[in-house]
Amino acid sequence: MLTLYCFGPGANSLKPLLTLYERGIPFTPRQLNPAKFEHNEPWFVKLNPNGQVPALDHDGKVITESTVICEYLEDVFTDPQYPSLRPADPYLRAQMRVWTKWVDEYFCWCVSTIGWDRMVSRMARAMSEEEFEKHIENVPIPEQKVKWRRARHGFPPELLEEEMGKIRRSVARLEARLSESPWLAGPDYTLADICNFAIANGMQNGFSELVNEKAAPRLVDWINRINERSACKKMFAETRREVVPDARPAA
Amino acid sequence: MLTLYCFGPGANSLKPLLTLYERGIPFTPRQLNPAKFEHNEPWFVKLNPNGQVPALDHDGKVITESTVICEYLEDVFTDPQYPSLRPADPYLRAQMRVWTKWVDEYFCWCVSTIGWDRMVSRMARAMSEEEFEKHIENVPIPEQKVKWRRARHGFPPELLEEEMGKIRRSVARLEARLSESPWLAGPDYTLADICNFAIANGMQNGFSELVNEKAAPRLVDWINRINERSACKKMFAETRREVVPDARPAA
Repeated sequence: MLTLYCFGPGANSLKPLLTLYERGIPFTPRQLNPAKFEHNEPWFVKLNPNGQVPALDHDGKVITESTVICEYLEDVFTDPQYPSLRPADPYLRAQMRVWTKWVDEYFCWCVSTIGWDRMVSRMARAMSEEEFEKHIENVPIPEQKVKWRRARHGFPPELLEEEMGKIRRSVARLEARLSESPWLAGPDYTLADICNFAIANGMQNGFSELVNEKAAPRLVDWINRINERSACKKMFAETRREVVPDARPAA
Repeated sequence: MLTLYCFGPGANSLKPLLTLYERGIPFTPRQLNPAKFEHNEPWFVKLNPNGQVPALDHDGKVITESTVICEYLEDVFTDPQYPSLRPADPYLRAQMRVWTKWVDEYFCWCVSTIGWDRMVSRMARAMSEEEFEKHIENVPIPEQKVKWRRARHGFPPELLEEEMGKIRRSVARLEARLSESPWLAGPDYTLADICNFAIANGMQNGFSELVNEKAAPRLVDWINRINERSACKKMFAETRREVVPDARPAA
């Protein structure tokens, strides 16, 4: 029995979701509601003490961390009926890991901070002082508490500027790589593409001044190519996208 | 032919170094001198455009990123004459990856910032303005340039305080884990231990107020157990530790 605890099909939750769809591995999705902070509720924190999705329950064993889950699925489901997304060649596999590592250590953080500033802040500000403090109390990770306080009271402008610089460099790096290779880790579509797509998809809208057909044609083409894959279409059709209340971008 | 480009036996360079010693894989070490910024010289940047060690040259193919190199060595050297440091069981392997990921995303950064503040800053301040700017120009990664400027002109006190908090939480996390398990990923000594040891070893001296037999007995015991392994002793005996010029801690 494979149960995936996740949010909707975006960010870190998308990584194992799309991996499972692409490989055709049967699983039960269990979507948590971020607006209700279900991931910080005691029943879930018992499952993952960090109070974070995604988390995979495989016959009672819980695997956490999105990238680790994707590699775990490769280690467990080796039958060719589930096509692999990890190169067999060790050198290409190392390239794949350089890219899955980069998204986790660099790319995802800058995009996340700007996303929090634009979207989560509205949620944080809509709460009463009491509701907010009660929520903060339930957040297990100290750095997440800091992020929530910043979402409510404002991120330091110099931090936002720094993060925007990192986003610009990330887009340039992806564009450069995709100008020399069809997929990030080389000739084949791999976990490197899925894990980076999890963050990059949607930037055509949220960061359209950077991610458009003129400024980053290869990146846009790569985002489109992944969106057009049947597994990706199926995932988006079958998985509820959450609506964050009062999270409309400023006019 | 296996050539490892590295600094001395500490931090990220220690990860593949100790892995190679533990597994008995023959290799040629090529130690670069950080005080002379050899890793930013054109010949090396051609090899690794990030200008960072460690980097592994395997028959002309270059693998970068210390943790990726350790996994690469597992993927390539599968002969039982080179004992594996990666659990065969997928669940335990996932635990190993949670720990190698954590050190790369969290533990190493806070220790590194304090280390830069205490040690590298003396190097950065010893340079003339001209030398310093010339050096900065050769640093390929923008975030590293920022770190160098901060080393020369001072890290923001609130950043140092934040990083010290992270170090305290890291030590508590390691101590808690080692109270329930002999090794980080479970019953066996794995890459999880090597990659965390790379950062933790030396904290008995540099952070003795946190890492001592009273405050963190399991962590100290774990550090000692790894230091006592014959492969570790051999590595330290055969690998030159670099002396950073003018890097004595303040009296």
